[in-house]
Amino acid sequence: MELKPIGIIHTPYRTTWDTPFQGRSSIETCEIEIFKEYEDGLKDIDQCSHLILLYWLDGADNRVLQTHNPFDTDIHGVFATRSPNRPNPIGFQVTELIERKGSVLRIKGIDALDKTPLIDIKPYSSGIDAIGDAKIGWFERNRR
Amino acid sequence: MELKPIGIIHTPYRTTWDTPFQGRSSIETCEIEIFKEYEDGLKDIDQCSHLILLYWLDGADNRVLQTHNPFDTDIHGVFATRSPNRPNPIGFQVTELIERKGSVLRIKGIDALDKTPLIDIKPYSSGIDAIGDAKIGWFERNRR
Repeated sequence: MELKPIGIIHTPYRTTWDTPFQGRSSIETCEIEIFKEYEDGLKDIDQCSHLILLYWLDGADNRVLQTHNPFDTDIHGVFATRSPNRPNPIGFQVTELIERKGSVLRIKGIDALDKTPLIDIKPYSSGIDAIGDAKIGWFERNRR
Repeated sequence: MELKPIGIIHTPYRTTWDTPFQGRSSIETCEIEIFKEYEDGLKDIDQCSHLILLYWLDGADNRVLQTHNPFDTDIHGVFATRSPNRPNPIGFQVTELIERKGSVLRIKGIDALDKTPLIDIKPYSSGIDAIGDAKIGWFERNRR
């Protein structure tokens, strides 16, 4: 199961210290450059208001199975957290598509580091992807 | 960028003809078996009501860049569709967690084929992952 980069995510974030706490809260407009050989795959993408991006978390530690979150000091399994450290370090973010210009997509709402390799783009569908009342118990308790 | 399977998705769907049109509409309860060496990563996952699953679409054709959808006859770029055929054939589905029993997760809402290799599990957060009014232009037009 070998992945190939289909493009590069350009952001103003050079180190993990620069990144916003969550991509959804990022107000920066960022550019995704799709490699020329994959540009045909973008046909009609401008008809999508929101995109799911999958990308490779380059600096992640793929040996970590339990971790604590900035929100609390308890230890959780990595599959119960959104930590970048996990066996297969794939980042996931729902973003807003601002515009497409050729092989470049201008998007909003991502916290990836600059030069992050892009793996996949999927159109976001409210009908199949939006759950209004999902719960993450440990997270809810820490917000109180 | 090499992936390793962290488990196996068991479903009643043996061929693509058996699968429901969209996982979200599947009423079957399916079992995900997490390999023993990754079981520590499941700590506290039972506190999550919904899970994002990433999995490997084994039979997909990774050379396809444009395709048409069962919904219509127009050709779209694969990044504007949810087709399994794409440069990096990673499947994505938001599912409901019914229960965890040791290294097995019982879930609802997936259309993957039986024995699909699981790549990652992330907790679904309504706050960062739910967009209520996303639009996919070509899809909306075909529903009218």
